[in-house]
Amino acid sequence: MSAFAIGVDLGGTNLRIAAVDEQGTLLEKVTTGTQVARGRDYVISEMCDAIRQLSAKFSRDSRMIGAGIGVPGIIDSRTGMLRESPNLPGWHNYPVRHEIERLLGAPVILENDANAAALGEAWLGAARGAESMCMITLGTGVGGGIVLDGRIWRGMTGMAGEVGHVTVDPVGPRCKCGNTGCVEQFASATAVVRMAREAITLGRAPELARMAGAGDVEFNAKVVYNLALQGDQPARDIFNRVGWALGVLLADLINVLNLQMYVIGGGVAAAWSVFCPPMFDEVRRRSMVYAATAPQERVTPPSGASAEVSTAPMGQPTIITHALLASDAGLYGAARLPMIVSQEAEHQRA
Amino acid sequence: MSAFAIGVDLGGTNLRIAAVDEQGTLLEKVTTGTQVARGRDYVISEMCDAIRQLSAKFSRDSRMIGAGIGVPGIIDSRTGMLRESPNLPGWHNYPVRHEIERLLGAPVILENDANAAALGEAWLGAARGAESMCMITLGTGVGGGIVLDGRIWRGMTGMAGEVGHVTVDPVGPRCKCGNTGCVEQFASATAVVRMAREAITLGRAPELARMAGAGDVEFNAKVVYNLALQGDQPARDIFNRVGWALGVLLADLINVLNLQMYVIGGGVAAAWSVFCPPMFDEVRRRSMVYAATAPQERVTPPSGASAEVSTAPMGQPTIITHALLASDAGLYGAARLPMIVSQEAEHQRA
Repeated sequence: MSAFAIGVDLGGTNLRIAAVDEQGTLLEKVTTGTQVARGRDYVISEMCDAIRQLSAKFSRDSRMIGAGIGVPGIIDSRTGMLRESPNLPGWHNYPVRHEIERLLGAPVILENDANAAALGEAWLGAARGAESMCMITLGTGVGGGIVLDGRIWRGMTGMAGEVGHVTVDPVGPRCKCGNTGCVEQFASATAVVRMAREAITLGRAPELARMAGAGDVEFNAKVVYNLALQGDQPARDIFNRVGWALGVLLADLINVLNLQMYVIGGGVAAAWSVFCPPMFDEVRRRSMVYAATAPQERVTPPSGASAEVSTAPMGQPTIITHALLASDAGLYGAARLPMIVSQEAEHQRA
Repeated sequence: MSAFAIGVDLGGTNLRIAAVDEQGTLLEKVTTGTQVARGRDYVISEMCDAIRQLSAKFSRDSRMIGAGIGVPGIIDSRTGMLRESPNLPGWHNYPVRHEIERLLGAPVILENDANAAALGEAWLGAARGAESMCMITLGTGVGGGIVLDGRIWRGMTGMAGEVGHVTVDPVGPRCKCGNTGCVEQFASATAVVRMAREAITLGRAPELARMAGAGDVEFNAKVVYNLALQGDQPARDIFNRVGWALGVLLADLINVLNLQMYVIGGGVAAAWSVFCPPMFDEVRRRSMVYAATAPQERVTPPSGASAEVSTAPMGQPTIITHALLASDAGLYGAARLPMIVSQEAEHQRA
């Protein structure tokens, strides 16, 4: 009998639920708004109803393995409680997993959303086939997830993978995390807009100033990216800094972890073509481990994404590429979680 | 029947061999000079003779599990060959493990020496009892090793753990690795001497100048440390920079990996008392993951080393401390390697 799992991406804005089979085929996807304002119990109840409906639909011909739920925030995987989750007020120190399991009558795994997205890209996306990888997500902030030997590396308290707060410039701009010069201050959508406004204030960016002054469109990272694409130098300079910061971060990660793949996702990753040349320059200069894997040519890896592949003397290249699954990465990764637990349980029984 | 393993620390200067039992008791230790100049075959033959003698002595009452050998350089763990080893010229691309196994007639594991030292501290030293830890070794350069769930994290090509080449100041001094501003340029013994000479050149360090001019003692990191201990401000400033750089590195590692323990070893770690206050200040300021584990008081962990222990809300503190086993860490770690392999094989049979 075939089997499937439910993956949930519980964001502050959208609630997305998918049924995915063991081969990674998306059976069905449901998207609704998350009515966070109506409170925790309401959201959990709605979510459980939707999971039950989707699950019932496929349970006739297939075995339901379990459900994985990606949540923004820090999760204590032992207790199944959220420690911190700014986008889900009132969920703190509440037995979320236990309550959902009670309502569903099925095993549930909670996971940080950035970790779930990393697992999704590792399973079915840009890092498909890689045993170990790190994903860097460039959104409002910069998040990340690390997959080692096919499993999410959570660290001691579930806080591993905070790559957005690695210091790339010790005297750089102050970050809300308390540090100065985090990569998030250079490579997030928020940082792109801040750097654009700084350039405007200095009177060095007439085109950016014109776009910021036009009241009809929101002045966001995409606007800056479009100007960069059109060759506007002040906009290109901003993405040079994005690439520089990511290059410093990647060099650190490669030197420390020596993983097979590094995947860059999130909204700002759409600007890959403009920030990747300075990024690769910086990684090559700063990481002896990357240099030792001898970058030789820019090729297209099996996943189809454009990437720089370095052919290592030992036959294994270090690959840096962009994500492929967009916002579905978190859904697939969440669905993958109960499958891994189930496989490990089978493995132990065998 | 009790069992033991042989640990070997094959340095460019000394060859040290120990028999260690499964409880971590040192049964016997032999130290000889490594006659690297007499060539690879001579060194391997001498080493195998010494291993056989030590092994024979304890094999009467105890079972020999195997031998682990810590080697300076990059090891391909699948082929048992050295990829790069500046201190062992002529060992490159030679089937070292295979040859030693042939001479010994016993299974042999080769490991990078910094990784072996990390495993030693994790098993019997400062990180005893920690599932996962990172060791930072401050010597001529800055090396490191990462232990995850009790096993060395080698990475894709055995190059993981190069924490000494994490960028802490992107516009800092050039490093021989090609990067600028590596932590090695601030926290190695070489860097301490360089910073002292820079201060002397600037005419800002009369005491350091006096010691550097005295022909009777070698002007090394220890001399600078002794002046710092005596309260000499220019010498203290140098160790403030050591602490600053280590703080930036530790903040990065804690944010990315969220491990239980970070252990600082190597010769420069003797200056712990002078560099640890600025180091802890920097970690606290720069790592939200460290801050979330709520540093509350400086206490003495079970290992006996002085350390800052932060009591995490989830009950698990992040501990940063200094190494305890000095140069024996690598020997113990090397001996531990065949024990882990043997335990895993038993576990799989069970």
